[in-house]
Amino acid sequence: MKTTAEYGTEIESALRSLDLPGGKLSTLYGPVAYGLSAGGKRIRPVLTLMGADAFGKSHAEAIIPAIGIETFHNFTLLHDDVMDKSDMRRGRPTVHKKYDENTAILSGDTMLTLATKYVSAVEDDKLRKVMDTFNDMALRVYEGQRLDMDFETSGDISVAEYLEMIEGKTGALLGAAVKIGAIIGNASDKDAELMYEFGVMTGLAFQIQDDWLDTFGDSTTFGKPIGGDILNAKKTYLYVAALAEGGQTAEALKTAFNIPAGDMRIKTVTRLYEKLGMKDKCSKAVGYYSAQALKALNATSLGEQEKDAFRKLAEKLIGRKK
Amino acid sequence: MKTTAEYGTEIESALRSLDLPGGKLSTLYGPVAYGLSAGGKRIRPVLTLMGADAFGKSHAEAIIPAIGIETFHNFTLLHDDVMDKSDMRRGRPTVHKKYDENTAILSGDTMLTLATKYVSAVEDDKLRKVMDTFNDMALRVYEGQRLDMDFETSGDISVAEYLEMIEGKTGALLGAAVKIGAIIGNASDKDAELMYEFGVMTGLAFQIQDDWLDTFGDSTTFGKPIGGDILNAKKTYLYVAALAEGGQTAEALKTAFNIPAGDMRIKTVTRLYEKLGMKDKCSKAVGYYSAQALKALNATSLGEQEKDAFRKLAEKLIGRKK
Repeated sequence: MKTTAEYGTEIESALRSLDLPGGKLSTLYGPVAYGLSAGGKRIRPVLTLMGADAFGKSHAEAIIPAIGIETFHNFTLLHDDVMDKSDMRRGRPTVHKKYDENTAILSGDTMLTLATKYVSAVEDDKLRKVMDTFNDMALRVYEGQRLDMDFETSGDISVAEYLEMIEGKTGALLGAAVKIGAIIGNASDKDAELMYEFGVMTGLAFQIQDDWLDTFGDSTTFGKPIGGDILNAKKTYLYVAALAEGGQTAEALKTAFNIPAGDMRIKTVTRLYEKLGMKDKCSKAVGYYSAQALKALNATSLGEQEKDAFRKLAEKLIGRKK
Repeated sequence: MKTTAEYGTEIESALRSLDLPGGKLSTLYGPVAYGLSAGGKRIRPVLTLMGADAFGKSHAEAIIPAIGIETFHNFTLLHDDVMDKSDMRRGRPTVHKKYDENTAILSGDTMLTLATKYVSAVEDDKLRKVMDTFNDMALRVYEGQRLDMDFETSGDISVAEYLEMIEGKTGALLGAAVKIGAIIGNASDKDAELMYEFGVMTGLAFQIQDDWLDTFGDSTTFGKPIGGDILNAKKTYLYVAALAEGGQTAEALKTAFNIPAGDMRIKTVTRLYEKLGMKDKCSKAVGYYSAQALKALNATSLGEQEKDAFRKLAEKLIGRKK
């Protein structure tokens, strides 16, 4: 196994050597290349490479499918940015700002088909399993995104509904990324499923930690201003778990979300979260899903060295401060 | 072989029995079902069924992939309507009007993945060829759509560029629809390629005929007002072929496109098209691509009865008055 930094370098190098059509078709593929060049941690394709290496095939066999996973991820960011009307991502204008909305829609569609094509670059006897895993994951992601959109206008969201949403929006892709790597590495069906579970649970822990950081983190290490979710009245884990407590304080929380967006709302909501014990409860949830991830990982037939590589990655992802 | 009407009935029946998730996910899949229920000729999936039957497998084996082809077609209509800001399609509000734009984007993405999933419902030993055909076709379609968008703001378009655009936007899907049916039917690689060529050339003839009808057709049989392309200053076959003539009349045509959109522009441009012999030239182009389609069909190993079924379909499609 290599280090995640080494895998990341291989991903960046493979992305740079993608041979996308140019000339008059650069109006279609230029925005695709722009979307893919945004950088980021490349966690998902790294998971694919690790899956292949861990189960005994060289990660070199998984490099194009791994690029497919990253292309899918960037496709979702591109369309999500259009839907959210987000102007900036990772310090650069989003595709629909740099170009226009129609370009973002069409080049996004192109990325989804390119992703499908790249992911299908596996041996023939693995194609069925890989494509089924990929397509089912994609549907889970859209379902998660749809639930997230619907939550904006719906009343009380239960914790279970929130978890279903992030399992789709965040968990499914991490699960499929590592599962596809495992399939390429000739993992047994049981091991492939356990790795999917490892990825999904890591994703849940990651997302809940992200919710925690947005309210209780340190803006210098988190990398963005604290309280953004509260300003946007986002129904995060903190919010849905707080509502589930019921009673007067929960009612006060709903009222506090109606305070005009500003420091006063951030302070009031944060104080209510603390009063309801959410700082601690949220941390415990992160711990619970991290443990579930490790439980699945430990149940695989992988050796200790391989398990350790995945443990470190999960730790790095979840324990991150930004 | 069955009649196209019989194949069409099977497609409608299969579409009606699609088991899309409901409940709280109906906000995602409801618009998908709405998009698929718009009706239309179902030419593309009928071609898939015919391909399977003609080459010796029962069309029953091709029914789910055929639904995938139709789902892909409707996905492109859905996103195109967002990009074109079209409010109506087949006498009903478009998805982004009935719901909203974000719904159209996300449910469109869902349709593309569903299409990929349905198309992959083939025997394992055909999966690679079918998926490659499907993904390559999808990229051609996006490229065609992109060229079409770019033509709106670019200067002179050559006839070759126009043909490249409609080969992507209209031809590739008809070609892939029948080719995937042929692959399912165990056609040889050569026959599958010839059927692709048959579909593409039929698509070119169809599109050029559509351009002709929009200017020289009869509004009662064409089903929409005559002159729409001229009012929208669309760069149709008539326009690009007229410009290729060069000289003063071609210059006059450019000027005529600047007349305020109305009857006067329609009359002036139509007269110039006639003066440049476009009514006849366009008909000849339709005849040429129809002949190319038949040439490819005739070169296959199919029997006369099967060839005749495809000939009739092409004739019906191209010879249509609406």
